[in-house]
Amino acid sequence: MRKKVAISMGDPLGIGPEVVAQALADGRVRAAVEPLVFGDAAALRSAAALYRVAAPQVRQVQGGALAFVNAALDAVLAGEASALCTAPLSKERVARSEDPRFVGHTEHLAVRCGTRVAMMMAGPRLRVVLASNHLALAEVPRAISSEQIAFVTQLAASELRARWGIEKPRIAVCGLNPHAGEGGIFGDEEARIVAPAIAEARAAGVDASGPHAADGLFPRAMKGAYDAVVALYHDQGLIPAKLLDFRETVNVTLGLPFPRTSPDHGTADDIAGQGKADPEPMISALLLAARLAQR
Amino acid sequence: MRKKVAISMGDPLGIGPEVVAQALADGRVRAAVEPLVFGDAAALRSAAALYRVAAPQVRQVQGGALAFVNAALDAVLAGEASALCTAPLSKERVARSEDPRFVGHTEHLAVRCGTRVAMMMAGPRLRVVLASNHLALAEVPRAISSEQIAFVTQLAASELRARWGIEKPRIAVCGLNPHAGEGGIFGDEEARIVAPAIAEARAAGVDASGPHAADGLFPRAMKGAYDAVVALYHDQGLIPAKLLDFRETVNVTLGLPFPRTSPDHGTADDIAGQGKADPEPMISALLLAARLAQR
Repeated sequence: MRKKVAISMGDPLGIGPEVVAQALADGRVRAAVEPLVFGDAAALRSAAALYRVAAPQVRQVQGGALAFVNAALDAVLAGEASALCTAPLSKERVARSEDPRFVGHTEHLAVRCGTRVAMMMAGPRLRVVLASNHLALAEVPRAISSEQIAFVTQLAASELRARWGIEKPRIAVCGLNPHAGEGGIFGDEEARIVAPAIAEARAAGVDASGPHAADGLFPRAMKGAYDAVVALYHDQGLIPAKLLDFRETVNVTLGLPFPRTSPDHGTADDIAGQGKADPEPMISALLLAARLAQR
Repeated sequence: MRKKVAISMGDPLGIGPEVVAQALADGRVRAAVEPLVFGDAAALRSAAALYRVAAPQVRQVQGGALAFVNAALDAVLAGEASALCTAPLSKERVARSEDPRFVGHTEHLAVRCGTRVAMMMAGPRLRVVLASNHLALAEVPRAISSEQIAFVTQLAASELRARWGIEKPRIAVCGLNPHAGEGGIFGDEEARIVAPAIAEARAAGVDASGPHAADGLFPRAMKGAYDAVVALYHDQGLIPAKLLDFRETVNVTLGLPFPRTSPDHGTADDIAGQGKADPEPMISALLLAARLAQR
């Protein structure tokens, strides 16, 4: 059965309308998704014409990209759709013209839903959850805490169980330092911060392991030894996620009362309007939204 | 023409003798390498018997794994061989029983040859050079310097030219922070430390670019956009290198007066003597040593 997915069209100046129009014409998406698109009908008609696909039906929304997100979110919260998929917007343009406090979809949805969230990058071979995100590397050692690592580890396990249908998810947690500190020779954060978090998650019934040396861990995770990896900082998680399956890796927000997905690319203003936008990441995001909504 | 490669057998308690014996029986290695093996003949005979391959000829050396390395190095320095390939040893055992100052092959070879070196991980799709290595993550932001980054960038370019035969090597340098700091929002090391190093390398005639956001850079480098990537810290470089081509990625020391390679695994004491050692990484290391020696 097709699942109702609310879709925000993204920034009209970027490739959002183009990837939405193309993705909704894709056979795999048509079979899995009943779309409720929020945005600007004229922008979507132009985008559809550019790729010679049918223009999708749109619920016309006044305002910019953030207004489209809010309207799509309202539809999900009202029960009109069971998942949310967001096309890319420009943080800078939203902050400038719609909401000066805006720093990104993930944070905005957390505030609007009143929940604590985490970001997962989900690809065919690897799922990575971040314990910290857009921070200078120098801030990471003092920003990570046992409490936060335990939270994301438990959140990953509970969502993999509830939404992915994995009965006993195996979660591997990275160390912070090379070789996970090699017994304390290169840093003590593994013993002081990471190990207690893993113990806490295990005490709560999660099959969590680590801290693992990150460079050795990802090849094992890729081969299926774990259902998700908790990375302690942005590049530790994003480098392997993007390297393995660039076009099929989907950004998933964990911790919301519904599944939310998005393609992991930006508005790509430089190629907008040229007929060059690759819809595959948006297709992956829509298919995953439908799959997660099914449970 | 086969190239003379001096080979140290590695720690007799680990899988070194097993991977050496197997690798030297491999047809690809026999075609490319004229081996001069330094170590213990009895250990190599046992290892060869375990895998039912011919026992290699050995120059018997008194002492332990470090003595084998020193004898192999002496042979290269005396002109008896044109490259060095080292099987794994245990840093802890060498430090305990042979030389308390020993911290690893790379550092030992640098001291004995009186040169400044850098470590490269070279695989079929990606070459990564490290600007820092076994340091706690918290130390990295203050340990990296423009001078060191410029040094490794220029060293990578000069060795790729001289030994790999790449006329104008394209070297990409990673940023330290997520999104390479996104214009200074997450850290200023890109502007303060990395960009001046790239400018210095470019002034010296190197086709260096960056600082690049590391998560977006590695997929492009994998597809051939660059000949090598300079990573600023251990996991930034080792995560992608190991994820892509685990068994074929070879540790290469740059900056020595001869090519030195080694497989990127340890002594694996837990499987030693069981007939389970995978020779493929040692085979890759020997083939690369021969290839680099040919120029």
